[in-house]
Amino acid sequence: MTPYFSERFYNPSASYLAGREVRAHVEAARASVANWLGAKPAEVIFTAGATEANNLAIHGVMQRHPGANLLVAATEHEATLAPARHYAHELIPVNPKGMVDLVLLQNLIDGHTVLVSVAIANNETGVIQPLRQISALLAKIREQRRHTGNELPLFLHTDAAQAASYLDLHAARLGVDLMTINGSKMYGPKQVGALFVSAKVMVEPQISGGQQERGLRSGTENVAGIVGLATALHKAQQHRKVTSERERNLRDLLLRHLKQKFPDLVVNGDMKHRLPNNLNISFPGLDGERVLMAADERGLQIATGAACSANKHSASHVLKAMSCSEAVTNGSIRLSVGAGTTEEKIMQASDILKQVIGEWHG
Amino acid sequence: MTPYFSERFYNPSASYLAGREVRAHVEAARASVANWLGAKPAEVIFTAGATEANNLAIHGVMQRHPGANLLVAATEHEATLAPARHYAHELIPVNPKGMVDLVLLQNLIDGHTVLVSVAIANNETGVIQPLRQISALLAKIREQRRHTGNELPLFLHTDAAQAASYLDLHAARLGVDLMTINGSKMYGPKQVGALFVSAKVMVEPQISGGQQERGLRSGTENVAGIVGLATALHKAQQHRKVTSERERNLRDLLLRHLKQKFPDLVVNGDMKHRLPNNLNISFPGLDGERVLMAADERGLQIATGAACSANKHSASHVLKAMSCSEAVTNGSIRLSVGAGTTEEKIMQASDILKQVIGEWHG
Repeated sequence: MTPYFSERFYNPSASYLAGREVRAHVEAARASVANWLGAKPAEVIFTAGATEANNLAIHGVMQRHPGANLLVAATEHEATLAPARHYAHELIPVNPKGMVDLVLLQNLIDGHTVLVSVAIANNETGVIQPLRQISALLAKIREQRRHTGNELPLFLHTDAAQAASYLDLHAARLGVDLMTINGSKMYGPKQVGALFVSAKVMVEPQISGGQQERGLRSGTENVAGIVGLATALHKAQQHRKVTSERERNLRDLLLRHLKQKFPDLVVNGDMKHRLPNNLNISFPGLDGERVLMAADERGLQIATGAACSANKHSASHVLKAMSCSEAVTNGSIRLSVGAGTTEEKIMQASDILKQVIGEWHG
Repeated sequence: MTPYFSERFYNPSASYLAGREVRAHVEAARASVANWLGAKPAEVIFTAGATEANNLAIHGVMQRHPGANLLVAATEHEATLAPARHYAHELIPVNPKGMVDLVLLQNLIDGHTVLVSVAIANNETGVIQPLRQISALLAKIREQRRHTGNELPLFLHTDAAQAASYLDLHAARLGVDLMTINGSKMYGPKQVGALFVSAKVMVEPQISGGQQERGLRSGTENVAGIVGLATALHKAQQHRKVTSERERNLRDLLLRHLKQKFPDLVVNGDMKHRLPNNLNISFPGLDGERVLMAADERGLQIATGAACSANKHSASHVLKAMSCSEAVTNGSIRLSVGAGTTEEKIMQASDILKQVIGEWHG
């Protein structure tokens, strides 16, 4: 990324050669992202982060269809829930394992539903949703609409911010019409993202001006960020199988150690349909925030719920939607493994948690 | 900026110490920006670029006041004009020197006007607007409204994207309620900006989610970009008087040389109320785009109009608003001097333009 902060610090819309060269680098990045998503380059819109991409997907579709409604999974990130609240919407319930209930989803879709938004993998629990089945359901309903003369489209959006290091993101294989990509969750830069927008979908721009990104996101392009995002996605997707196996082994090792010490430990969310790096667990009766602080003092960085400030000091809406008890919700912590995690660090983490929790828990 | 891409790549909303440290760096950057703007830190909202900041200012105020109207200078950047088109609005005419006509502005303000947006300095001509006089006019109208019981506020927004290296940006001295700052126009990073929003002004958020930036711009913060923006603004403002004198001398030297060779050269826009780095000139009868291409081949990078793609191959709306003839508009080029410009480079630029234009112009 660094050359684009100095010797290549040209505006890609400048007419002179140095500007056109930078434009070519932006377009090469777009082609690379498109390739991994199985998309055409024109279907990739670079945004300033995943939150902006989710906002563009939801406002962009809903403003095109006044009076229509949308459905979002009850466990979605606030970056999806908050824009959805501007429109007629329903939350799609999830089962206690955190997975969208397909029968309930089908019942919620009515003749005015234009958009369904379900993240491929949850940011707190890592639970992976059955996107292909959701897509098949929507295809069936589209077919019914054709027969009954209902011309309203029905689109599927997925927030794939958490998934790029682990899952296939080919849009056609997933059956999605819109998909959010995030730089910072795959070792790329912060506040850089992309929205896949199928050529079938018309979206209303949210930030207007110089007509960059096919008019859907005006503003001089973040060239360094775009190049960084494309490189991060390439690496993440190229190595996702090896990464997944490595991190799953480390995650499962940690879980085995903790279960031995704390037999009443609860795992939140499905263990089979789950990102390999995520462990969301509860120690009923403990306060997750206190565990976080005590672990931090000993050198172990963990989380409770989402990091975003809106969710601080309030119970996780994700665990609530999974019908977790108050004790389980308050006692939950999120442990993530990543590229820097080793077996030795897993043992250290396990020891620290045993100390910290043992103090209160006995 | 670089540490924030690697060893300090923490989410500033994370609860553990390393996250809180990054949060402290973001807030130190905010305090520094606020200090230069004469603002409170809470009045500075970091955005992904100046286009987004202008959109937030205009949509943010107008959505709070349904049925109200706004006035924008006819010479504003598309990042102001495009969001303004969503609402009842009028363009404020400028005189042939490019300056807002205060009498015409006063006549355009009616009892439903809630916002006036005038860039402190134009992006094509560098013309500096009489913001303090505009602010005084608005203060007078606010006073009248108090007497007549009209409770509608009347705010002044300025796009200061072009100005940070040259002008005082103290909000109270300028008398502005909202002000847009841009990273990349002052040797800071691209797609990072800030919007000053006076504590008096309520704006509706445009990107919602995790409630970052007091809820006005959700999304994990671009920490590297924010730190870079604050540093760039500090340097720009600290050295602005020396920078202005140096660049004005170089710019004026170039103009003298060109005038000697081309006596029919036209300077577009006021020369006194003008950014010291900007020279927008016309060679009536020539095609500015062709001059640009020929100069580029010889190593001189110049511009015509704004760089944004929307304005490509269409005549400058800025020069049109200044009542320039078609020949002057089509024959215009924009020359900017900057930190890397030397007297030697000015001589080279002058020679290249003499060659390029001489070929056609005789």
